[in-house]
Amino acid sequence: MAGKNIDKSDALNDPDNARAVTSYDVARVAGVSQSAVSRCFKPGASVSKKMRDKVMKAANSLGYEPNAIARSLLTRRSNLVAVIISNLTNLYYPEVLSQLSQQFSDRGIRVLLFALEGEGKTEAALQQIWQYQVDGVIAAVKLTDEQLAEFNRRNKPLVFYNRFYTSLAVNAVCCDQAEGARHLVNDLVAAGHKRFGIIGGPEDSVVAHERMAATMDRLKELGIADITSVSGDYSYECGGAGIEDIRLKRGEIPEAIICVNDLSAIGAIDALRYSHSKKVPEDVSVVGFDGVGPSNWSSYDLTTVRQPVGRMTDAAVTMLMERIENPSLPPEKRVFSGIMIEGTSAKISE
Amino acid sequence: MAGKNIDKSDALNDPDNARAVTSYDVARVAGVSQSAVSRCFKPGASVSKKMRDKVMKAANSLGYEPNAIARSLLTRRSNLVAVIISNLTNLYYPEVLSQLSQQFSDRGIRVLLFALEGEGKTEAALQQIWQYQVDGVIAAVKLTDEQLAEFNRRNKPLVFYNRFYTSLAVNAVCCDQAEGARHLVNDLVAAGHKRFGIIGGPEDSVVAHERMAATMDRLKELGIADITSVSGDYSYECGGAGIEDIRLKRGEIPEAIICVNDLSAIGAIDALRYSHSKKVPEDVSVVGFDGVGPSNWSSYDLTTVRQPVGRMTDAAVTMLMERIENPSLPPEKRVFSGIMIEGTSAKISE
Repeated sequence: MAGKNIDKSDALNDPDNARAVTSYDVARVAGVSQSAVSRCFKPGASVSKKMRDKVMKAANSLGYEPNAIARSLLTRRSNLVAVIISNLTNLYYPEVLSQLSQQFSDRGIRVLLFALEGEGKTEAALQQIWQYQVDGVIAAVKLTDEQLAEFNRRNKPLVFYNRFYTSLAVNAVCCDQAEGARHLVNDLVAAGHKRFGIIGGPEDSVVAHERMAATMDRLKELGIADITSVSGDYSYECGGAGIEDIRLKRGEIPEAIICVNDLSAIGAIDALRYSHSKKVPEDVSVVGFDGVGPSNWSSYDLTTVRQPVGRMTDAAVTMLMERIENPSLPPEKRVFSGIMIEGTSAKISE
Repeated sequence: MAGKNIDKSDALNDPDNARAVTSYDVARVAGVSQSAVSRCFKPGASVSKKMRDKVMKAANSLGYEPNAIARSLLTRRSNLVAVIISNLTNLYYPEVLSQLSQQFSDRGIRVLLFALEGEGKTEAALQQIWQYQVDGVIAAVKLTDEQLAEFNRRNKPLVFYNRFYTSLAVNAVCCDQAEGARHLVNDLVAAGHKRFGIIGGPEDSVVAHERMAATMDRLKELGIADITSVSGDYSYECGGAGIEDIRLKRGEIPEAIICVNDLSAIGAIDALRYSHSKKVPEDVSVVGFDGVGPSNWSSYDLTTVRQPVGRMTDAAVTMLMERIENPSLPPEKRVFSGIMIEGTSAKISE
């Protein structure tokens, strides 16, 4: 303990003494041990209310506060975690970030935010992350094999959020994209739809690819051959553009449109209604994926798969904290089923 | 410089030497001075591309990286700033946070995120902020006089985002809430509207109060007396609840509804259309404030005041960085006019 070398005998009695107040000063004023003071400032440590009140009163009277950065050099814990996220303005991620932030905060942990413009810009973020000695990382972006190896080499706990690596032993919390996509296809086909349009997501989004692949596979399994797929980028605008692309490709608008996220589905519905004079769902059924706030607005009432964000973020935070405490825990993958929301944007079978 | 005391003579030649690689090792391998290596890793420092390539190559070959936390103890700069924000799931703030994060990142600064559930929980956040020795703070929440005094006592740079203190010398970047609100009222009254409903915002939101007060003042200035105002909380749901409250209070729905933010205006439009069979704007004009993404969606095409988020966040980041470099700069307030967006959700005069 660095503090043990400091001569504490006269510090409090000398009005000209301008050195920083230490935990030993607080302990003396509170009449408790230094380790008790230390525990009171350690997030999550068990301390009685009486002890805490006594210590906090002394700490406040002296203007004491622990230096988190200096402490991290002694304890090798910074109580910082990094959250790497992209597409922050996509309507799904703010909710994820808000929940992660609150749940870490409840555990006395601070979030260092890395909001990337796209999933490709992870390398620069990782260089920063190593420098700040974070205790662990939540990544809602994909990483290369080399980057993963670097996490292992450094023994730095990592939990993926909605990124699943089938063949690698990593920690991951996911919504079951394929299951959700198959469920949506099942419902649309059961309602009698035979002609399909699909609007995809960003090239560099793993989740978008998973949803698209599962949708195509399931349609084919069910004997549907009339499928027109176009690219998109998760935005509202790409929904309208996608409808136009599909119309140009096939000369008409098919009876069912599957969008890989809610925001593009909302854009598709608005374009169908206001640019193509189509009724939703009477003329065209539209489905999305995510269950974002606006999917539930009366203008859309979207048929979609809601990701259980609360449970997923709780699982990610818990898994990361367990591995910060005990880095030798084996990797774990937790896959949550999405919740099927049957709105009125798609015809369903009676 | 702590590194100067390390004996560097044999470190690189001894394969069993497990000590951390230092900037001196990198300098030796790269054939440059230690200060050149240091500059290459200092955000914003001027270094030639040739020098940087040489140093980075040597650093990579040795596995060198600077310890940002240890460096912060020497330089008294952590290159961390805190951003305190509330209502993250309100549709306006994710865009603000995303822009702030990118602009700090471009300057080599990391964002420590404090996402509060409401504006009341600032004290706990500040205790953490002092501990992490951030270089400065952007606060999109209000602070008490005592908390402000603490910033001054610590000489810690602070810039308020959309919080304006008329009588205090603080740094602040704001959208002119009152001007925007008055502009909206002017347009509605010029179009002949005489009966008004107003849906307010959260009790603890300064911005909501400013917009509400300016709206009421301007309506009265223009001789409008028939005003029914109800409370809200910025949410989509409160828009519909507000319409119902207004209807119950006066027995009918007035011809113009002013909402203090876009999200509640969108909720009001949906409720008017789907619960009260009213046409917008033929039966009722609705206006919002913020200019969030969905305000522009075809289903709403909201008449609103857009906050110039890009310019405001750029101003906030620039002002904070200037004050981190030079804490003696005098306080400054920058007020940006909002941009009037004339959608089709409100009748306007021909």
